[in-house]
Amino acid sequence: MNQTFQECIDECLRCIQACNHCYDACLKEEDVKMMADCIRLDRECSDICSYAAEMMARNSPFIKEICELCAKVCEACGNECEQHEHEHCQECAKACFRCADACRKMIA
Amino acid sequence: MNQTFQECIDECLRCIQACNHCYDACLKEEDVKMMADCIRLDRECSDICSYAAEMMARNSPFIKEICELCAKVCEACGNECEQHEHEHCQECAKACFRCADACRKMIA
Amino acid sequence: MNQTFQECIDECLRCIQACNHCYDACLKEEDVKMMADCIRLDRECSDICSYAAEMMARNSPFIKEICELCAKVCEACGNECEQHEHEHCQECAKACFRCADACRKMIA
Amino acid sequence: MNQTFQECIDECLRCIQACNHCYDACLKEEDVKMMADCIRLDRECSDICSYAAEMMARNSPFIKEICELCAKVCEACGNECEQHEHEHCQECAKACFRCADACRKMIA
Repeated sequence: MNQTFQECIDECLRCIQACNHCYDACLKEEDVKMMADCIRLDRECSDICSYAAEMMARNSPFIKEICELCAKVCEACGNECEQHEHEHCQECAKACFRCADACRKMIA
Repeated sequence: MNQTFQECIDECLRCIQACNHCYDACLKEEDVKMMADCIRLDRECSDICSYAAEMMARNSPFIKEICELCAKVCEACGNECEQHEHEHCQECAKACFRCADACRKMIA
Repeated sequence: MNQTFQECIDECLRCIQACNHCYDACLKEEDVKMMADCIRLDRECSDICSYAAEMMARNSPFIKEICELCAKVCEACGNECEQHEHEHCQECAKACFRCADACRKMIA
Repeated sequence: MNQTFQECIDECLRCIQACNHCYDACLKEEDVKMMADCIRLDRECSDICSYAAEMMARNSPFIKEICELCAKVCEACGNECEQHEHEHCQECAKACFRCADACRKMIA
């Protein structure tokens, strides 16, 4: 497996963990209502990263399309997380933006 | 495919829809904090039902084990949902209990 | 949930079953080598349909994008299956094309 | 996240990659028929590892149950892969056994 592939898989896996950690922590926050979009996007993002990582690992013929979608969802999740001051949100935003970058490199 | 199989797949699919509808609706409720466990279990339950339905459809050698786990998660989600008066929770609880029953029939 | 949504979810669920039945049957065929692309695409198609059905059920903000990708994968799987005379392949092809149509209606 | 958790997630992720690499390579082998069980178990194993990794990352209340099932599927996949001389099978078997061990540590 070439390096771009492996890097993108690694970023997806880090993003899954950051999103699920953030998801779990958001559900424990005092003001859950304010975190509703974050919770929702964390799940979306974790699911698509998980999907993308598996498709890259199995050399799917639809890698380009899934990476394009993954970049879009990561971007949206990162944009939402970035607005919240919780450390789990800030960490998640960083992981999302790194993953979006890695996905865009796969498409290029 | 025999009838018990098909019934269990159908109940899983109905449960996925009920859980995700409830999940979506919970995140829009006024008091999201009170719904945190419900949101979390709706996701758990939707994921395991989706997994179980696919494993049955592909005749996996691990159907018994997954149906056992699925029944347990459905039961837990149903017990949580049942406590909330929202219609989406009550509907979800019913779908969960029906799915748990169908899974237990698969194991028997 | 409106009718177009529900129809698309239903077609996805039927497609998952057809793909996994075909996948399972292909792996039992005498000439598995000839079925390699079919096996691979059945898995791809089942996975994306499962993903799309869940995203529609949870009212994901990325439904359009996932339905577009789902239509593309269903089309590719249907085109492959259509070339094989096995009944499970022919049935799968039909389910794939119906699902691709339903997904395209969602995007329109 | 404590170390046992992180190690188990890491082993799951390595196992997903090994299984999907083996799956992809098996479908390109000359004698695919001989690899049918390997292909099937690679998919089962990748799916359950992916599922387990996500459940650990989101601190699911069903981690013990899923790790128990994951250990069982990894064991079965490892036992099958071990019998084939292809390098991708041998590598996959090792990843499966390591992952099964990590899952059993989670349960203990």
